[in-house]
Amino acid sequence: MAQALAYAATSPSSPLGPYTIERRTPGDLDVAIDILYCGVCHSDLHTARNEWGGTVYPSVPGHEIVGRVTAVGALVSKFKTGDLVGVGCMVDSCQHCVPCAEGLEQYCDNGFTGTYNGPEQGTGATTYGGYSKQVVVRESFVLKITHDDATLAAVAPLLCAGITTYSPLRQWQVGPGQKVGIVGLGGLGHMGVKIAAAMGAHVVLFTTSEGKRADALRLGAHEVVVSKNPDEMAAHMGSLDFVLNTVAAPHSLDPFIALLKLDGTMTLVGAPASPHPSPAVFGLIMRRRRIAGSLIGGIRETQEMLDFCASHGIVSDIEMIRMDEINTAYERMLKSDVKYRFVIDMATL
Amino acid sequence: MAQALAYAATSPSSPLGPYTIERRTPGDLDVAIDILYCGVCHSDLHTARNEWGGTVYPSVPGHEIVGRVTAVGALVSKFKTGDLVGVGCMVDSCQHCVPCAEGLEQYCDNGFTGTYNGPEQGTGATTYGGYSKQVVVRESFVLKITHDDATLAAVAPLLCAGITTYSPLRQWQVGPGQKVGIVGLGGLGHMGVKIAAAMGAHVVLFTTSEGKRADALRLGAHEVVVSKNPDEMAAHMGSLDFVLNTVAAPHSLDPFIALLKLDGTMTLVGAPASPHPSPAVFGLIMRRRRIAGSLIGGIRETQEMLDFCASHGIVSDIEMIRMDEINTAYERMLKSDVKYRFVIDMATL
Repeated sequence: MAQALAYAATSPSSPLGPYTIERRTPGDLDVAIDILYCGVCHSDLHTARNEWGGTVYPSVPGHEIVGRVTAVGALVSKFKTGDLVGVGCMVDSCQHCVPCAEGLEQYCDNGFTGTYNGPEQGTGATTYGGYSKQVVVRESFVLKITHDDATLAAVAPLLCAGITTYSPLRQWQVGPGQKVGIVGLGGLGHMGVKIAAAMGAHVVLFTTSEGKRADALRLGAHEVVVSKNPDEMAAHMGSLDFVLNTVAAPHSLDPFIALLKLDGTMTLVGAPASPHPSPAVFGLIMRRRRIAGSLIGGIRETQEMLDFCASHGIVSDIEMIRMDEINTAYERMLKSDVKYRFVIDMATL
Repeated sequence: MAQALAYAATSPSSPLGPYTIERRTPGDLDVAIDILYCGVCHSDLHTARNEWGGTVYPSVPGHEIVGRVTAVGALVSKFKTGDLVGVGCMVDSCQHCVPCAEGLEQYCDNGFTGTYNGPEQGTGATTYGGYSKQVVVRESFVLKITHDDATLAAVAPLLCAGITTYSPLRQWQVGPGQKVGIVGLGGLGHMGVKIAAAMGAHVVLFTTSEGKRADALRLGAHEVVVSKNPDEMAAHMGSLDFVLNTVAAPHSLDPFIALLKLDGTMTLVGAPASPHPSPAVFGLIMRRRRIAGSLIGGIRETQEMLDFCASHGIVSDIEMIRMDEINTAYERMLKSDVKYRFVIDMATL
């Protein structure tokens, strides 16, 4: 065991503060990592404040981790000391169920081990996330990073926001000749715009905010629709091959379902705290449309996403913060006051 | 023009009664049909009573039609006088949009012409359905019937209830090695059980009614689950490849979504008058599940369904009624007091 400095919440109502945790001694299959940057995801806040229930305290959030390898176990073959690596939302899974065998560890029948607040395989100990100086992770859950060193901090959000949007875009085979809608321009939505555009689709960004129009175009959207404007919405009725809906706040899904073509799918990647209004079944029946869900992505696909983003020069738009600014960052995140992801410079811890 | 005896509703609140309508003189592409039997669909009742709005009176319902050809137009090649034929929910469509070109006339971009209460292509006249002695239909919307003559009355419901369940089962590639759920054992559900079993799937019928258990097994279900029993439901959690939900009454979709495997789909074929409770997004996200809709089927697929049913000896379980029993039949249908479809013997009109 080794001690590691971290930032933790000790109760649902307490702000995060310095806390010393223990990291396991790297086993034969483990990779020890010095964390350089960690992105700030809305899930971090939900967990720190126990808003989903089940948080074990002290809680150390953070699952958008970029760092450098400091040691590897005897049986590790893919990584060596000095390598730049990433860790996302998972650090382990059962590795023997059907989804695991298919590289879909996020749907592990026995439940994957979350990077934080997850039960460690075997011991059941609570995992601690990336708001920390070091982490030890099983090799098969560590990703290679091939982006330019200068962009490392902005790579961190790819490990959650990037893969969460890449995976459904890939699953539903988004590409050239298709018209794709991205709903919402936040941490997830801005990644969705960049990735869908890089995949060759014609991208239409839907936002409630007139003020985001220019920024959406800058990020790669070909068209921007202010969804509160019925005329703008009507112009796209029945014309989209796919819609990626990144908005977690409860909202009517019907206007977005109406945008879909025959056999079109809208994938939801945000789970609202209270339900969306019930979608009209008629909208699904009339053009054989579908509402789907998607959860992050498997490890193989996460590596594919990182490589895709590196080759297309895609990173997140970020605002770098110091570790001791995390509580203020949470408050700003609640007001959507961030373009588009906070990333903690772990050198400040 | 020729006069035809029919049964019509003349207002939302009046019972159906005898009414004389006019049928067009068959054109070069038309088939004139003497109607032998007509199934009774819940849509008939909704339309007769204007429960969906938009009913034009007098209204002659009926879109599960079986009859015999009495005349064909000069350019008709597929049918000749004396042939046994069927007509389903559609009698025409624009024939030039993308869905029509793909044989998906039910999703015609310009709106298909319903067998009743539909605007006739070109004239915009209101169409009259199968509660009638004769009908004239464009050749391309007439189906060949190859079932044994003795089963003709029981073939009629295939034209709506049959295709409505066959189409999504085919679309989602139900077959051997798959475990498929059918929710609800009414007119649609009992067809879903028969067809899914004939496709080679392991069929689990979900019903709220303990009393339907034996009948579901007789119809071909391999297992029956009373969905009000949490233990019975739990035994099938995450195990179904596909669920066909035929229940139009508002109900929670979540317990049925929870039955689906990774990447499983539940298709809804009933549109509730008031919304279902909003489905939990979490249930979709956690196994990348999907909720879809489906509307009847195209003409090509309807013929495929009729041929499939003929070769597998599948017909509907029916209760034959006289034309003048239709108002009583509607009342019984509202109480689900029918096993499983009323069919009108048109000789009684």
